[in-house]
Amino acid sequence: MPVFPARQVEALLNDIFVAAGTPEDIAQYISSSLVGASIRGVDSHGVMRVVWYVDEIMAGHIKPAARPKIQKETATIAIVQGNWGFGIFALGYAMDLAIGKAKRSQVAAVGLVDCSHTGRLGQFAEIAAENRVLSIITGAGLKPQVAPFGGASGVMSTNPYAIGIPGGRFGPIVADFATSSVAEGKLQVFRTKHAELPPGWIIDKDGRPSTDVEDFYAGGLLLPAAGHKGYALAIAAQFLGGILLGLPAYESNFFILAIDIESFRPFSEFAIDAEKFLHQVKTTPPAEGFDEVLLPGEPESRNVKKRTVEGVPIPDEVWQKIQKAARLVGVNPSLHDRSSAVSGE
Amino acid sequence: MPVFPARQVEALLNDIFVAAGTPEDIAQYISSSLVGASIRGVDSHGVMRVVWYVDEIMAGHIKPAARPKIQKETATIAIVQGNWGFGIFALGYAMDLAIGKAKRSQVAAVGLVDCSHTGRLGQFAEIAAENRVLSIITGAGLKPQVAPFGGASGVMSTNPYAIGIPGGRFGPIVADFATSSVAEGKLQVFRTKHAELPPGWIIDKDGRPSTDVEDFYAGGLLLPAAGHKGYALAIAAQFLGGILLGLPAYESNFFILAIDIESFRPFSEFAIDAEKFLHQVKTTPPAEGFDEVLLPGEPESRNVKKRTVEGVPIPDEVWQKIQKAARLVGVNPSLHDRSSAVSGE
Repeated sequence: MPVFPARQVEALLNDIFVAAGTPEDIAQYISSSLVGASIRGVDSHGVMRVVWYVDEIMAGHIKPAARPKIQKETATIAIVQGNWGFGIFALGYAMDLAIGKAKRSQVAAVGLVDCSHTGRLGQFAEIAAENRVLSIITGAGLKPQVAPFGGASGVMSTNPYAIGIPGGRFGPIVADFATSSVAEGKLQVFRTKHAELPPGWIIDKDGRPSTDVEDFYAGGLLLPAAGHKGYALAIAAQFLGGILLGLPAYESNFFILAIDIESFRPFSEFAIDAEKFLHQVKTTPPAEGFDEVLLPGEPESRNVKKRTVEGVPIPDEVWQKIQKAARLVGVNPSLHDRSSAVSGE
Repeated sequence: MPVFPARQVEALLNDIFVAAGTPEDIAQYISSSLVGASIRGVDSHGVMRVVWYVDEIMAGHIKPAARPKIQKETATIAIVQGNWGFGIFALGYAMDLAIGKAKRSQVAAVGLVDCSHTGRLGQFAEIAAENRVLSIITGAGLKPQVAPFGGASGVMSTNPYAIGIPGGRFGPIVADFATSSVAEGKLQVFRTKHAELPPGWIIDKDGRPSTDVEDFYAGGLLLPAAGHKGYALAIAAQFLGGILLGLPAYESNFFILAIDIESFRPFSEFAIDAEKFLHQVKTTPPAEGFDEVLLPGEPESRNVKKRTVEGVPIPDEVWQKIQKAARLVGVNPSLHDRSSAVSGE
């Protein structure tokens, strides 16, 4: 597969978004976010999304020039109206608002409604952590792909959570996970390989446990992670992102909780205890089958180091689609393929 | 096993706590909380705890007359100093404070430090929900019984979360779960029965997966629920309950996030959408192996109906210990055993 320098990919994405009617600042923000996901190895939320986003603009679902606005606001809370613009830019705006409010009022809660796909949630938790703010982000979607615990029809989305914590010299600790057994993207990987699923991931259309990935695509459902625990977290996400803000009209609504560290403790003291604890976690001897203990977000940070140097690998099929999307909006998609210079991925 | 009317058990517990030096209002609050857990079927956090609490008073770890005080406070946050009194009373105090702050400032965060065992966390999430406040409670403990994902030594406690959501006519939706595979109490049940554990619950002292419960008690560890997901939630709990408030000096610290529903939406509108969603969840056809879909907290509510009528069953061994604890502080532990009138438990 081709491998391109991250900066070149970002410039191409930026050109595509601008050509599709996106203001320069928004185009830059989204391009940087998508490439940021790809260099972290989170390809499902990375550069491949440009294809879908262009489709969405063409279909009128994304208004590329729309800017988020504050619909309701107090010193501690806000509801941000996405105005059907880019979700990534809108959630960045909502997070900045939450950070500012947390700094002034110690704690803040900000909801985001009416926007498109918001990309990699962990990105926003990381921004908060860099600002010495602890954050929890969750969302409620419209796609009922997940069964409640013990149930056989879909009532929940994959209801993700992202949590960001300042980790002192360990950098931001960022967790980002679905409350379902896995995200649907992982099922696609097994489908492509014709591989058997581990037990506990899905049920078929009749509510029977299954390890055949095709049963999911024939009307089956994802199960909640850890049974009643993932189920409870998903219900909470549906309430925070959905019912508290009104049901999402399209795609997903999001909810941010932000807590200013320094409101509770001087940051220097916090950082000392944080580093002590994280050091203890990191130096835990590995369990059978593991090489070492990784902190939440550490696999992604390692990919950044690797892919910033080596470039962003893009599967042939995805690269063809990106080229097609580029030409559709009148951009010449020529990038320098470095794959021959790179060790196999 | 003996079965006693809930009111009689509560009166006995109250007498024991008062005789041990607890002011009447605190004694009533704790007795009601412990019996409340028992009638919900959460026996591990129920009346059996009176024995341990009396031990803790005798050992000087619980100061029965101590009252919680506010150590630090703004309009939106507080740190409550438990003063080494009863944790249940202190967490109730902290939750009342959080509810009041959320009502006035839309959102609030309250920490609790320096207290004893806080009982069933769901109780406090339920109080918030009854006040139209959505809450998340979590805690960090000192007992390192849980391995990080991929690790072979204990760095986390079972780091529970309780979430409370007003559910309209469905009543408060209350989830209350450990971020470890199971709580340690469940291992005790398997140990008593000499039963094999399901895979994925524990590792032995050398970090190898095990289904032999004795491996846990020989230096083994609990695993996080759902691997990296439970691990991430536990890390967040250690930070919120622990590092943000300073490390717990004894037992656990707790952290409450409280969000006033009406700050975001009129409660009547929220309740309509809540009921519509919960109805949809409840009417999901059951999956294979299940009779129906239960809402978080529903199994506990059903126990209340049953045990309020039939009484609270107390295993012989526990009842003997309670009698001993009662006599130790000079209380006559005579209750009316109704077990002969009750269908087998």
